[in-house]
Amino acid sequence: MKKKQICVLATGGTIASRPTPNGLMPALSGEDLLASVPEFQETCDVCCVQLLQLDSTNIQPEHWIHMARAVAERRTQYDAFIITHGTDTMAYSAAALSFMLENIDCPVVFTGSQLPSGVPGTDAEQNLLTAFHAALGGRAGVYIAFGGKILFGDDARKLCSMQLPAFGNINRPLAGRFAGGHLTWLTEAPNIEGAFRLHDQLDTRVAVLKIVPGLQPKMLELFVDAGCRAIILEGYGLGGIPDQESPANFLPAFTYAKEHGCRLVCTTQCTYDGVAMDCYEIGIRAQQLGVASGGRLTTEALLAKLMIELAEHAAGSK
Amino acid sequence: MKKKQICVLATGGTIASRPTPNGLMPALSGEDLLASVPEFQETCDVCCVQLLQLDSTNIQPEHWIHMARAVAERRTQYDAFIITHGTDTMAYSAAALSFMLENIDCPVVFTGSQLPSGVPGTDAEQNLLTAFHAALGGRAGVYIAFGGKILFGDDARKLCSMQLPAFGNINRPLAGRFAGGHLTWLTEAPNIEGAFRLHDQLDTRVAVLKIVPGLQPKMLELFVDAGCRAIILEGYGLGGIPDQESPANFLPAFTYAKEHGCRLVCTTQCTYDGVAMDCYEIGIRAQQLGVASGGRLTTEALLAKLMIELAEHAAGSK
Repeated sequence: MKKKQICVLATGGTIASRPTPNGLMPALSGEDLLASVPEFQETCDVCCVQLLQLDSTNIQPEHWIHMARAVAERRTQYDAFIITHGTDTMAYSAAALSFMLENIDCPVVFTGSQLPSGVPGTDAEQNLLTAFHAALGGRAGVYIAFGGKILFGDDARKLCSMQLPAFGNINRPLAGRFAGGHLTWLTEAPNIEGAFRLHDQLDTRVAVLKIVPGLQPKMLELFVDAGCRAIILEGYGLGGIPDQESPANFLPAFTYAKEHGCRLVCTTQCTYDGVAMDCYEIGIRAQQLGVASGGRLTTEALLAKLMIELAEHAAGSK
Repeated sequence: MKKKQICVLATGGTIASRPTPNGLMPALSGEDLLASVPEFQETCDVCCVQLLQLDSTNIQPEHWIHMARAVAERRTQYDAFIITHGTDTMAYSAAALSFMLENIDCPVVFTGSQLPSGVPGTDAEQNLLTAFHAALGGRAGVYIAFGGKILFGDDARKLCSMQLPAFGNINRPLAGRFAGGHLTWLTEAPNIEGAFRLHDQLDTRVAVLKIVPGLQPKMLELFVDAGCRAIILEGYGLGGIPDQESPANFLPAFTYAKEHGCRLVCTTQCTYDGVAMDCYEIGIRAQQLGVASGGRLTTEALLAKLMIELAEHAAGSK
């Protein structure tokens, strides 16, 4: 049987970090990481590409483009991709690549660790192992392999800053689990129908405004004035945003954004369930003024989706 | 035995809502709500005060003051308080009253419901029942009684926009549970030592900035320029905020905020575990530039705490 061809794209993160006098900093290469899972060196052909060496706090949309292109360019040469990545923005990157690599026909599996490789109790080896099993499992699409879970990349979130099983899917069931050395899929395999398409143009003029008691509606207008082309409003519950004359009424600011060509999309600051803006008078009025419902999409997913849509809308209108 | 004196402060919310052609709107009075738990009319003396009639999306810091004063003024006349409140901002109001009613020596129990009173499957009656049991349980402090849980008011969050057991404690264990008609405390009773003190002055010039990939540091400076006296930064993981020269470096914006007298406090956008800014170089550098660690406090808690501190600092420096 022909060995599977696996491409590991290393980007840094805690999994590649070493202690320094200034705190943890990325230092290990992708090759160093692979030394911890030698079994796959025999059963697969593993190629390692050092794409970046960053704490994922510093991962930006330009790095999503770098990662997406790296996969797109190599996709006919490999059976699967593993992307080692810091945990802090892994959910953002996984959501971004889920949209940027439309109809990708092979596995693209993000992984990383909460504790550095080599320290006692680290989750690095177990997560790498999980990622390899998910990659060899062959299901197409973008996933995160972490803490014994295979998570859908377009709906994941880092829920815990310290606990090792840090990630959860938010409004989708888990794709699969890895336990006792075995991978179990919990959902049906996706049916990839359309042709692959790389979306590598992003308009990054998107911001997030979290609605909290006392927030002045003028803050929304400031974001518009600063050049935002889309703003994700993290409202309350099913999509509530203050609308009373005194002391805070966001309705005029919605109109202001619309008049200035800035899209508003409402999601929820609740972790689970998404928004349903037809339930309350407040949500209905917001929609009438042009605020779109984010539905069950997370902030992480909406951010990348809007950046793609803005770039393609601009290209389409040229 | 003398009957317990319970004061119900009604503020509106879904629990008091009725369907209208424009969606759900608050309509029922506190007295209407109490009709669903007639058993307590016999065993306690229940007094109902209609403080507000609002969808809690529109609850603002001025309403926290109204609620806190209502409790403070009546605290020697009653054994316990129940505040019926919409779910959307209940966690914010409960956190605010936790700080505003320092050393309160009786129970102050928030409750509400995800579905309106009287509709099939509503959680309104069960939550009111839970709140009465918590109020009669006599433990001093501010709590939320919801979905079978008694939650600490200073650490609660609305985690689910649709599911009925919507609330969770974030970085503290649950205070108690209510099941099978019985209340079980899961933690030790608090030891209230100091004298009661009402903090009813708030400086509301506080905003929240969620850090996402692509966010321009100038957005932080815009908040400072708009007059914010404190900004809660929802960073990544243990407190990460981008610090690389290209394309996003927030360090100069931290200095800008400090020079303009605006406090910066970092918390995490992860749901659980809080921040620990001494682990990574990024967190250490941020602290050196004056960004304070929010520790294990939630955004909801930090918001009210900062509003109180800013107001009292201003009063103290006069």
